[in-house]
Amino acid sequence: MTNQGGERRDLAAMLAPLVRSLIAAELPVLAAHGISMWGYAVLSTLDDSPVRTQTALAEAIGADKTRIIGTLDELQQSGLIARDPDPDDRRARLLSITPNGRKARRSARAAIQANEDRLLAQLSPADRRAFLRAVQILSTLPPEDLAES
Amino acid sequence: MTNQGGERRDLAAMLAPLVRSLIAAELPVLAAHGISMWGYAVLSTLDDSPVRTQTALAEAIGADKTRIIGTLDELQQSGLIARDPDPDDRRARLLSITPNGRKARRSARAAIQANEDRLLAQLSPADRRAFLRAVQILSTLPPEDLAES
Repeated sequence: MTNQGGERRDLAAMLAPLVRSLIAAELPVLAAHGISMWGYAVLSTLDDSPVRTQTALAEAIGADKTRIIGTLDELQQSGLIARDPDPDDRRARLLSITPNGRKARRSARAAIQANEDRLLAQLSPADRRAFLRAVQILSTLPPEDLAES
Repeated sequence: MTNQGGERRDLAAMLAPLVRSLIAAELPVLAAHGISMWGYAVLSTLDDSPVRTQTALAEAIGADKTRIIGTLDELQQSGLIARDPDPDDRRARLLSITPNGRKARRSARAAIQANEDRLLAQLSPADRRAFLRAVQILSTLPPEDLAES
């Protein structure tokens, strides 16, 4: 049904190299902001969503909980996030983004998205809007919708 | 320019989980065909393009040359590819896909794309066409177009 007019390549085979190139293009932007890729994922999540515990944060970014400890230490030492004791559970600490963290994240995002916009300019305006709409829909489907039935 | 009507998430942040889900959905299909992910990449390349040397094949699928040796051995043992001496260079061997290899690849691809079509059915027909057109354009841009200028 999507294949009128001839064969197409598999979606994963087309998208995987594109994602690798997009990530490679992010690295110098993040390095210029003194943020790692995982650090950027953490700052983005804390800036956008009400996640406050390390467990919920790890889940939101799809990382192992122990894997992000070093990233959180770095971000805290750079003054980009704060970790405060949870008043409801003294053994736990609540995460939050600092004003400097928000500034760093938004500056990095502006540079990353300016680069992406340059890439998307290869598409017609109508295709660009449809592509972004499609990516937003497909990226928010539950994983079970992607598995074979 | 692509951001009318509010903020959007970074492209890589939206596409990376989608690619992971698409690849995860391919694994049981490939397992049912007795092909590994790298084996599928090799068969697809040999079925679609005139690549004949191991060096050119490795480059085409973005793999290290030594990494695909085991994959080529497996595919040859399964009768899915052939490796014949190069008449122009007796030290080299030329790769080709066998009729059984072509059959396995095309059967796996049909199942993978049927699954992708089910996913793409979440989009309106116009968005689906635009999305596939956009992915085809973006995935064939040279990598330097993706880097920051």
